[in-house]
Amino acid sequence: MKLLPFTDVKITDAYWMEKIELVRRVVLPYQWEILNDRVQGAQKSCCIRNFRAAAGEIRAPHSGVVFLDSDLYKWLEAASYSLAIGADSRLEAWAEEAVELIAAAQQPDGYLNTYYTLMKPDKRYTNLMEGHELYCAGHMIEATVAYSQASGKNKLLGVALKLARHLYDTFMHQSKYPGHPEIELALFKLYEHTGERFCLDLSKQFLDARGQGENQMEKERLDPGHEWIWEDMKRFDNAYFQTHLPLREQESAEGHAVRAMYLYAAMADAAKAADDEGLKDACKKLFLSVSGRRMYVTGGIGSSSFGERFTSDWDLPNDTMYCETCASVGLMLFARRMTALTGDVSTYSVWERALHNTVLAGLGGDGKHFFYVNPLQVIPAVNHGNMAMEHVKTVRQSWFGVACCPPNIARTLLSLSGSIYAQNGGDLYVLAHIESELEKDGLCVRLTRESGGYCLYVLGEAVNLRLRIPEGCIMTGEGAVERDGELIFRHPGGQAVYSYTLIPRVRLVYADPRVLYNNGKACLMRGPDVYCLEEADNGPDLSAVYLPDNAAFLEDEGDIREGLPVIRAQGLRADARDGALYGEDAPRFTPCGLRFVPYRYWGNRGENEMLVWFNVKHCAQAREIKEEPK
Amino acid sequence: MKLLPFTDVKITDAYWMEKIELVRRVVLPYQWEILNDRVQGAQKSCCIRNFRAAAGEIRAPHSGVVFLDSDLYKWLEAASYSLAIGADSRLEAWAEEAVELIAAAQQPDGYLNTYYTLMKPDKRYTNLMEGHELYCAGHMIEATVAYSQASGKNKLLGVALKLARHLYDTFMHQSKYPGHPEIELALFKLYEHTGERFCLDLSKQFLDARGQGENQMEKERLDPGHEWIWEDMKRFDNAYFQTHLPLREQESAEGHAVRAMYLYAAMADAAKAADDEGLKDACKKLFLSVSGRRMYVTGGIGSSSFGERFTSDWDLPNDTMYCETCASVGLMLFARRMTALTGDVSTYSVWERALHNTVLAGLGGDGKHFFYVNPLQVIPAVNHGNMAMEHVKTVRQSWFGVACCPPNIARTLLSLSGSIYAQNGGDLYVLAHIESELEKDGLCVRLTRESGGYCLYVLGEAVNLRLRIPEGCIMTGEGAVERDGELIFRHPGGQAVYSYTLIPRVRLVYADPRVLYNNGKACLMRGPDVYCLEEADNGPDLSAVYLPDNAAFLEDEGDIREGLPVIRAQGLRADARDGALYGEDAPRFTPCGLRFVPYRYWGNRGENEMLVWFNVKHCAQAREIKEEPK
Repeated sequence: MKLLPFTDVKITDAYWMEKIELVRRVVLPYQWEILNDRVQGAQKSCCIRNFRAAAGEIRAPHSGVVFLDSDLYKWLEAASYSLAIGADSRLEAWAEEAVELIAAAQQPDGYLNTYYTLMKPDKRYTNLMEGHELYCAGHMIEATVAYSQASGKNKLLGVALKLARHLYDTFMHQSKYPGHPEIELALFKLYEHTGERFCLDLSKQFLDARGQGENQMEKERLDPGHEWIWEDMKRFDNAYFQTHLPLREQESAEGHAVRAMYLYAAMADAAKAADDEGLKDACKKLFLSVSGRRMYVTGGIGSSSFGERFTSDWDLPNDTMYCETCASVGLMLFARRMTALTGDVSTYSVWERALHNTVLAGLGGDGKHFFYVNPLQVIPAVNHGNMAMEHVKTVRQSWFGVACCPPNIARTLLSLSGSIYAQNGGDLYVLAHIESELEKDGLCVRLTRESGGYCLYVLGEAVNLRLRIPEGCIMTGEGAVERDGELIFRHPGGQAVYSYTLIPRVRLVYADPRVLYNNGKACLMRGPDVYCLEEADNGPDLSAVYLPDNAAFLEDEGDIREGLPVIRAQGLRADARDGALYGEDAPRFTPCGLRFVPYRYWGNRGENEMLVWFNVKHCAQAREIKEEPK
Repeated sequence: MKLLPFTDVKITDAYWMEKIELVRRVVLPYQWEILNDRVQGAQKSCCIRNFRAAAGEIRAPHSGVVFLDSDLYKWLEAASYSLAIGADSRLEAWAEEAVELIAAAQQPDGYLNTYYTLMKPDKRYTNLMEGHELYCAGHMIEATVAYSQASGKNKLLGVALKLARHLYDTFMHQSKYPGHPEIELALFKLYEHTGERFCLDLSKQFLDARGQGENQMEKERLDPGHEWIWEDMKRFDNAYFQTHLPLREQESAEGHAVRAMYLYAAMADAAKAADDEGLKDACKKLFLSVSGRRMYVTGGIGSSSFGERFTSDWDLPNDTMYCETCASVGLMLFARRMTALTGDVSTYSVWERALHNTVLAGLGGDGKHFFYVNPLQVIPAVNHGNMAMEHVKTVRQSWFGVACCPPNIARTLLSLSGSIYAQNGGDLYVLAHIESELEKDGLCVRLTRESGGYCLYVLGEAVNLRLRIPEGCIMTGEGAVERDGELIFRHPGGQAVYSYTLIPRVRLVYADPRVLYNNGKACLMRGPDVYCLEEADNGPDLSAVYLPDNAAFLEDEGDIREGLPVIRAQGLRADARDGALYGEDAPRFTPCGLRFVPYRYWGNRGENEMLVWFNVKHCAQAREIKEEPK
């Protein structure tokens, strides 16, 4: 199966276009100003300044984190998608400015990195663990492919191929690999875009070397002459870098969550390209480890702030977790490749879960505020008073010193059209039900919402239309066959319209009982969308809220502009105890109305309490104990 | 009300004497060897070595933490109580050796601190925030009073009074105070023991200065010339040191939990001595803040590892908390003084809760292993995998670099006889039902357990016998009146025996619903004793355990030698979900037998899961909703 690229598809869906336009009109220009240090009151980025200095335009030392170059690359990647969506002469000029600057900062031998060029020109590739040179190179290459596809202009492609060739000459015959994966999936993209076989070979070399023989991360870590960038990293183990085992032997998702996702995505690419069963098997195990034992219901990953990493199975604290927006972007990258690799559309529900919940929550309604960390519960007094939650912000922040997440959200949303359709021989998959138009090799497809249902207009040769049924939804269509989570129409060729309905079910969702923090609790979902309680709607002390497990739900248009209704239910509140912190009276309850909003919407009404997993009060006793008659 | 001192009372209770003898026969000799660096395999203490160096016996720099002197003082205090319990010539010789050493280390002007004497003789009292000179002086004075009371020997008393006089001369007319309270309650003890009024005055001066005018902690912290001992402390605020407000204006328990308890205890002493209503009022508010909103059910305090401190109301995480053993020792000190101050015996249940649960849990069954941090839930894989729990040990440790808790447990248990009886005019209180003998001013009391009940043998003048009813217990006695949590016998004078029964009720206990982490859960208590589930008895995945809220409990002698039975009940286990981490089927349950052990016993059978708060399955529906008929 192959996902059809963003260049073949145009989104027309009002909700998603509003998000996309927010990114195009607000986020991208704002980020450009940030990168240029022109936003008053915001922390200086110094990103563009570093490039100017590396290009010799100005004299200045490097400022900011060592991987800051990637901010410009991710911005350029997003800007390229934006230009493919619609012309924007101002943005086009900025993108060209970026391209010129990147080209000018490249060294004669193809090397490209402003930090090492400015600060440690003789130390290139001596700190692969922390230096992020290959990480930045990867984002440069991803930006290049996007820019080349969107604009048809080839200037940056030359820079990227020169960089890739330089990397090939440096690393192809060494057993080295980056501390932060990214170059692997980027080289694979460059190979797919250009057909340059050496890019595929180098990507594969990085993957094959990882975790084999002498551990490169450990070697650097134990080197007394190692020049540390982050002293904290001394405490990290090989699993943090996913170098604890050869990739084919890794069975559980370990270490830094973003690193893991970028690595696993590249593994899936490589497994598919080479039809490599061993690697495919490892990918399946790792995907199951994430989605079956280490993922939050919101598609967040990374249970620990220290190391922004995976911890152990079922360890999913709702308050101290990391759940970085970028990690969920990475999970989307991994999940879409798993769908392409296995042809199993159910894996795409992980992509959808991450996008609909954590990734969208990362972006504030104004396009200028972002969450890096995505908690599942917030009590402002507790969050401010307890340092275990120091990293959790209770409201979205305007721009962070480490600015990975905002440009990652931007490139994800602006390339969304490349995540809707897929093809496999005579099958056309509709993976996401987003109103859109596809034109590809004589096949025209238009997906629209009409009077409560969906219509798929198809023009072209015979094809099986395989529509993924999203998680928690009921889909029906006249003349369609339902099978394995798909609704299948057989298009005999010519022109036809296929109608179907897609009804997201509002329901309580429970976690496996090994998730200690969620036992006795449930969350509310509507289709793939997780809902939450906010203080703004329900008053404080959300911890005291209980929902009967036979509650009825009422959808209500609401005023939240999130493409989703608010949901009302009759709940209960456990009464505060009179004076005594502990007592033997079982809790007493007072009925209360509850209003749930989509998780992705939370935190848009100022600082307040938020809760995803609430207490459930079992009312339907008969269904709870196996041994009792029904 | 005045608690009768340890010198007047002899414990005969088998359970407590076994603990006490464990401390006398194992802990004290072991600690002495540790202090002398003679335990193979254990980290070197260097405590005695520092004293030898300060005394000029050897030439060596100071080693170990800056407050290490207090280890010897706490050991000597405990050893003194031990000598009062029974003769022990070896221990007596060690104690005399310690006394000689302490006297020899005192400087001609009365100053006494090995760290500053050896390392920074010209920097005395320049770092009150971190230097712990006054803290160590306090423990020296506490040791002195105990040694003097137990042995009748006065050599150390001279050293202590000389030290106290030196402190008076230095601090009485300055607005300074220590970063770590302790000197205040110690000076009060010295005043009570000697009648030296200047000790009371200086104690009061330290209390009155605290949080008034220019903040001394802040001044030191902001001083660019400040020589930091712990860089981490730069991040602490004035509340960490309880200097954010004048003491009379403090209403919530803030900052480092041990500091807070030692301070509040001194406040209660001062309030009682001066009959100071304002200070008494502050003590009451602080006591309510701790016991009513910020205390674990185990009597643990300190919700955050960072700063080992209080956080905010209802913030009581069961996994990342600190709950230091020393803080619960401090809570006992505060609670007993609150009982003496207010005459309200219900406050003594906090003393009992801390002792029976957290403090006793700190001491392993072998007398050589200790908990500093006392978690309410442990899943070994989670604890090892998630750095938010790095400070939580899953098994007791043999001895720590910072050795505050083991000697604190020792001195607490060995002085227990001083916490049983209290007097107030014609009232004799029995605060704790521990078999014992009291002889005081012609009054002889013997408390024994006989055939399932208690007998109080009394010989002496007329007195009201006021027996505190412990939390969660039913007490009845023929001829007794029950009133305000007391069972009162009127002893008309002469000789008599009063019989009563004390039945600890086994029951589920619930937390206030504002405690987010405990909602939908309960813990099991028997009288004042908290119980827990351990993997050793119940298998892994304790998070899946549910108990019906109408469960019946069976007490069972068991083999745990903790003076308490094990408790059995029929519970349920939520079934693991097949494959899916999240699902919409309500949990299904399988019946299972459960075995609860006392919390203080946990961790004596190797590393395993432990859980205090388990899920409750509501079975008695009618009592749960107010609006429904009973």
